[in-house]
Amino acid sequence: MAQYDYDLFVIGGGSGGVRAARVSAALGKRVGLAEEYRFGGTCVIRGCVPKKLFVYAAQFAEQFEDAAGFGWALPSPTFDWKMLVSNKDREIERLEGLYQNGVRNAGGDTIRSRAVLVNRNTLLLEDEQRTVTADQILVATGGKPTLPVNLPGIEHCITSNEVFDLPALPNAIVIAGGGYIAVEFANIFHGLGAKVTLVYRGKEILRRFDHDLRQSLHASMETKGIRIITEATIERVARPSGAEIKVDLSTGEELTSDQVMMCIGREPNTQGLGLEKAGVEVGPFGEVLVDEFSRTSAPNIWAVGDVTDRVQLTPAAIHEAMCLVETLWKNNPTRPDLDLVPTAVFSQPEIGTVGLSEEAAGAQFQDIDIYRAQFRPMRNTLGSRSERMLMKLVVDAKTDVVLGAHILGADAGELVQLLGITLKAGMRKLEFDRTMAVHPTAAEELVTMYSPTYRIRNGVRVEN
Amino acid sequence: MAQYDYDLFVIGGGSGGVRAARVSAALGKRVGLAEEYRFGGTCVIRGCVPKKLFVYAAQFAEQFEDAAGFGWALPSPTFDWKMLVSNKDREIERLEGLYQNGVRNAGGDTIRSRAVLVNRNTLLLEDEQRTVTADQILVATGGKPTLPVNLPGIEHCITSNEVFDLPALPNAIVIAGGGYIAVEFANIFHGLGAKVTLVYRGKEILRRFDHDLRQSLHASMETKGIRIITEATIERVARPSGAEIKVDLSTGEELTSDQVMMCIGREPNTQGLGLEKAGVEVGPFGEVLVDEFSRTSAPNIWAVGDVTDRVQLTPAAIHEAMCLVETLWKNNPTRPDLDLVPTAVFSQPEIGTVGLSEEAAGAQFQDIDIYRAQFRPMRNTLGSRSERMLMKLVVDAKTDVVLGAHILGADAGELVQLLGITLKAGMRKLEFDRTMAVHPTAAEELVTMYSPTYRIRNGVRVEN
Repeated sequence: MAQYDYDLFVIGGGSGGVRAARVSAALGKRVGLAEEYRFGGTCVIRGCVPKKLFVYAAQFAEQFEDAAGFGWALPSPTFDWKMLVSNKDREIERLEGLYQNGVRNAGGDTIRSRAVLVNRNTLLLEDEQRTVTADQILVATGGKPTLPVNLPGIEHCITSNEVFDLPALPNAIVIAGGGYIAVEFANIFHGLGAKVTLVYRGKEILRRFDHDLRQSLHASMETKGIRIITEATIERVARPSGAEIKVDLSTGEELTSDQVMMCIGREPNTQGLGLEKAGVEVGPFGEVLVDEFSRTSAPNIWAVGDVTDRVQLTPAAIHEAMCLVETLWKNNPTRPDLDLVPTAVFSQPEIGTVGLSEEAAGAQFQDIDIYRAQFRPMRNTLGSRSERMLMKLVVDAKTDVVLGAHILGADAGELVQLLGITLKAGMRKLEFDRTMAVHPTAAEELVTMYSPTYRIRNGVRVEN
Repeated sequence: MAQYDYDLFVIGGGSGGVRAARVSAALGKRVGLAEEYRFGGTCVIRGCVPKKLFVYAAQFAEQFEDAAGFGWALPSPTFDWKMLVSNKDREIERLEGLYQNGVRNAGGDTIRSRAVLVNRNTLLLEDEQRTVTADQILVATGGKPTLPVNLPGIEHCITSNEVFDLPALPNAIVIAGGGYIAVEFANIFHGLGAKVTLVYRGKEILRRFDHDLRQSLHASMETKGIRIITEATIERVARPSGAEIKVDLSTGEELTSDQVMMCIGREPNTQGLGLEKAGVEVGPFGEVLVDEFSRTSAPNIWAVGDVTDRVQLTPAAIHEAMCLVETLWKNNPTRPDLDLVPTAVFSQPEIGTVGLSEEAAGAQFQDIDIYRAQFRPMRNTLGSRSERMLMKLVVDAKTDVVLGAHILGADAGELVQLLGITLKAGMRKLEFDRTMAVHPTAAEELVTMYSPTYRIRNGVRVEN
């Protein structure tokens, strides 16, 4: 008889946990997985998936405007928030079922309960008031929105946890933050018809992104009618009476809105997990500390995904889980490769970015060539939309290797997925130039920028 | 004094001719360019550009339908054909001006006249009744739609030359052909609200494309309501009275429509050009025969673009022109590289394709692995659209090199532009697998197909 109930017990039914559980079970391992809320995790339940569905909903507003230039007349479209929420719910339920059944069909146990560590091999299933034992344990509990707990009136604020299920579309919303979540929701609510004010303490939205993307997106959002207040924080939130919320800013200004959404960061879900009882160390932000193979300070306990605070992205969690399967069961210790991860911001216009920003490249390399095109895409030529698309390649002049690729505009997320392949393969700019254009597309700009727009020499911009 | 009026005289102001003229003039050469119709050529005036604008117009119809699932209500959108035509005209005029001014601003002469060869160094400008001489001559006269001149009633038919300026949107249109032009217009007219019948003599539309693309697009078009009649030809067209046109098919069926559009092929524009007086040989279809450097049988006369019937694509003509500039003026004889050209069909759904089809790869290589995903894209999950996206990689199993990439679905043309870079660089499938997914996108399917869907061994399909 086996020493433990399970070969592997996974805490958390999100992208990373489900993948590790499903593939391990499919390999014949005895696997248990406990999820305290809903299978699918942040990505499926209150992250990537509903977010993208809401982005699609918001994009229609611009489509309707743009159609006029192509001969279409649309007598006043109307939007029904409740229908979007309910259709979204149906899709999320479907996906949740797929996630849970994936583990079950592979032979794993799925348990709807909070699970906490009792010691290195024992877990308490709190909702079922029983313990289970496991040889190996995976912590995949993800993260949650950070709340500024000391902010007066924080009880009137929402986060991305609540936003997908608001009873009504707000007429006006104040969003705090300058990261990709804040920016995405500013564009979603604007597209759906709300008056949006973004309040960010930094000088410019989207810290660490290429400056061109940051400034161009900022300008586009303002042109659309989104108000962006930088170098300001929310000092106090109050709801004096009724639904209206008053927001006091550090600048002295008072804003009025129906909702206030906090998007100031995310933090690992490690509180009360019993990590200390199992000898699992955490870092200063509560993140589970792991080595390059995702192993914690307890030799039989592992962690993947947002709870480790490496790269907070679904595909990274899945990749870490797949590497862990190799390490645990196939005698093939495998390090997750988190270098050159392409990512998107589903703003309007959209961002797709991979590799080094111009600033980062200029700091690391002596000679950088910048290839940059900013143009009105053909789709905008017949309409009234003046929005321009931005494409930029950052190239190491000495080796001709493409170090960074940055796109602002329609389908940038789709495009950067494929640019990611070229950067990961270490391709040279020459190989872009050798590729025939596909006409007419926006992406053809990326293979027809034959001369640098400007150069960076020892960190200083030199005009061509 | 120079022996000739011009260092280079270009016949034809399309993509290839304008590029050669502009760049040569910018290098200080004395350049003349004659265009008998409008600057910009097929691409700008009656090809790629207006076609894509009409595709955008047609796509809105599906956007409006899809918006319902996301909470939008649109009381009956209406479409105004004349507004589309007139907005298109304005944009084409703008581009035409850019093309002509590009040559002029670089110092070249642009002449609105038909030009024909008198001998190897002399051209007659027919509209101006004068001759000019040139050291080097470039024939870049493009192509035109093939008309079945013996078809009874051909005078009632239109081609892509007329289609962008029809006085009204037809209620019903019959389109003859199965190539990309026929397919694109079938989708355009369907999207704009016409009843469309496509008549093609072959067994399946889009000959030489990957069979998956052909069959899946065919099925999608039929699902939308486009009627496709294969293995049939038009035997007779008649307009007994009024506007209604009767079309007799080889099958015995009679169709009724407002317009009949012939998209059965294109042929080089070489008739009456005086090529024989200059010693320029043409091939069986009237195409100017050129060597690998675009040189004709007359040593000082060159030809680029559709008139040479190599690859009938704007970027190919531009590339041939750029290579010619190297060959002519930079002492750097350069062969156009027309291998692995990515292309799009702007149908609905769209096709993007590069490299070998499954069939072609199976015939050339012993061991082929096929990676294939067919899925409902997220944008279709909330609506009633059941259309699925297809992505397929054809891989040489022995070397792991990706030989072909084929996409059917939204933005396939944009995606294949970037896949083209990876194929041109000879990348292996391994390098796709090493790339992190961007979630949620459609393109992430291309980097997450870890196992072959099936294999081809010595031309025979073997299930996994």
